[in-house]
Amino acid sequence: MSQFWSPLVSTLSPYVPGEQPKIAKLIKLNTNENPYGPSPRAITAMQAQLGDSLRLYPNAESSTVRQAVAAMHGVSEANVFVGNGSDEVLAHAFAALLKHPRPLYFPDISYSFYPVYCGLFDIAFKQVPLDEGFGIRLADYDEGAGAIIFPNPNAPTGRALPLAEIEALLQARSDVPVIVDEAYVDFGAESAIPLVVRYPNLLVVQTLSKSRSLAGLRVGFAVGDVALIEALTRVKDSFNSYPLDRIAQAGAVAALEDREWFEQTRQRIIASREALVVRMQALGFEVLPSAANFVFARHPQHDAAQLAAKLRERAILVRHFRSPRIDQFLRITIGDEAQCEALLQALAALT
Amino acid sequence: MSQFWSPLVSTLSPYVPGEQPKIAKLIKLNTNENPYGPSPRAITAMQAQLGDSLRLYPNAESSTVRQAVAAMHGVSEANVFVGNGSDEVLAHAFAALLKHPRPLYFPDISYSFYPVYCGLFDIAFKQVPLDEGFGIRLADYDEGAGAIIFPNPNAPTGRALPLAEIEALLQARSDVPVIVDEAYVDFGAESAIPLVVRYPNLLVVQTLSKSRSLAGLRVGFAVGDVALIEALTRVKDSFNSYPLDRIAQAGAVAALEDREWFEQTRQRIIASREALVVRMQALGFEVLPSAANFVFARHPQHDAAQLAAKLRERAILVRHFRSPRIDQFLRITIGDEAQCEALLQALAALT
Repeated sequence: MSQFWSPLVSTLSPYVPGEQPKIAKLIKLNTNENPYGPSPRAITAMQAQLGDSLRLYPNAESSTVRQAVAAMHGVSEANVFVGNGSDEVLAHAFAALLKHPRPLYFPDISYSFYPVYCGLFDIAFKQVPLDEGFGIRLADYDEGAGAIIFPNPNAPTGRALPLAEIEALLQARSDVPVIVDEAYVDFGAESAIPLVVRYPNLLVVQTLSKSRSLAGLRVGFAVGDVALIEALTRVKDSFNSYPLDRIAQAGAVAALEDREWFEQTRQRIIASREALVVRMQALGFEVLPSAANFVFARHPQHDAAQLAAKLRERAILVRHFRSPRIDQFLRITIGDEAQCEALLQALAALT
Repeated sequence: MSQFWSPLVSTLSPYVPGEQPKIAKLIKLNTNENPYGPSPRAITAMQAQLGDSLRLYPNAESSTVRQAVAAMHGVSEANVFVGNGSDEVLAHAFAALLKHPRPLYFPDISYSFYPVYCGLFDIAFKQVPLDEGFGIRLADYDEGAGAIIFPNPNAPTGRALPLAEIEALLQARSDVPVIVDEAYVDFGAESAIPLVVRYPNLLVVQTLSKSRSLAGLRVGFAVGDVALIEALTRVKDSFNSYPLDRIAQAGAVAALEDREWFEQTRQRIIASREALVVRMQALGFEVLPSAANFVFARHPQHDAAQLAAKLRERAILVRHFRSPRIDQFLRITIGDEAQCEALLQALAALT
């Protein structure tokens, strides 16, 4: 606290990202990173940017990235917004679309950055409880909502909603903006992007951090009606004209275009997840059905915090949230085959 | 305008960056980019980041960049904040430090992003007129100010203030935050960073876009008292945890450490500027004294907008602002020796 701070600053409760420790031979299953590297075509494309042209500003509109997203999803460039990671896209979306007289609704158990954005932008919100099976019940997102956001699949639960339920919500709440945060959608859920053409209140947010294996590059995007994209652009151009550097723009385009690498790596992760779930259940774990690159699981006989601590002693990091309702769960990222095997052996020894 | 927009959005007047056109053999003197490429050591450092590790999140605190800045300026890492270009650093600074009951003061002719940030964050402001010689008169930044920001050297004028005047302001206005925006300081002004240890109300902002020739990489930083840095960090961690990608962090560190490349290129630009000024004056131009990598000049017999248009026909881009008091000036970036020569030949033909 300082007399020089804007009054807002002392009211903030900033987001705390998952730990990035420096432990030798660490098996890092705590921040939902992809165990496989990015597309070799993306590496080559970035390589080509390393030179004198870095003295010049990048394209302020990230046009080539927007064109690549548009081509992939059959929309136009004007339907696409690009930002410095989906966190920045979400930040601009909270400011541009989610602040209304009535409160923003989102799930009580969800991405923990949502209430942080609300603090930053002074947005009233209501956290809607998940059902007993830790699923989102869209019927609860009623007329009281001034805007709605939820992840699909949800994090940290991993549970996905069918597209038909999302479409029903878009119809029922056609008067308010609805954001579907699809950070993990490529690992088993159905994207709502095809609904964008029919629902001007829908914005879909995705990231290259997970299924494109580029968490280290910071690229995210949103797809929606041109009016929604215009709102995001107006806020972005009032904040930072050039959020994506030249290397990131080139890498993102090539990563999006390399469909083969994308399919190969995500199918491998899905297969590892399915195998992991079966073997964790055999060890007595209750595992929520996951459509993501992580599982959310608890063991009836073992305290989650203790399990996480014991895994850490074995140089395996998983994520544990000390939050109501989920403090007996662990969120475990799907690693490569060897990492999954090492995790299972450790869990077998500890349970 | 859309019913789905947050009410703020329709009130915004976003910043318009300088044009980045695709014209063959263009001489681009409109956005103050460095004519020389970045440090070869920076290129090598970025090269080393292109691989599988891009699947992992970057360091959220940009620690190595902060350490490099701290080492260069004899401060500690806790005195340094790093962001996605100095525009993002400024955006966070406006939110974190410049919103107070009394208005923010800045020059009437200055970086045109300042009033845009004020619109985004709903900050009351007063634009203090430059004197007749287009200089900042700090005595005008009186008790009415709740906070103060100005560039040194100022843009688009290029005029610099002596450090003693800035120190006098810091003493006179010790009760309010003062930000000195030093985007162009390395081309001829004296940095206020050494004052940071004595003035807890001072924040100095710099960029790697100009004197480090990395506009395409998006890295800026601020140096100030730990309490000011904490405010910036709290806002940043409520907005986007990972604003700098792995490649940008590595490139920034190497660029900052390559003192030789920095000295060599900036001295070359300063020498070109001094030669250019003399020859422009010989053509009848009035050129403001510049401590930046650009000059701000007018010709008593030639309309600035027409001159800019005629230069453009010759594939030479300069910046013209249609703003009161300065609509007869051109802002011309210092190019390399050949570009300066081509510019002078065109100006000789046109005047």
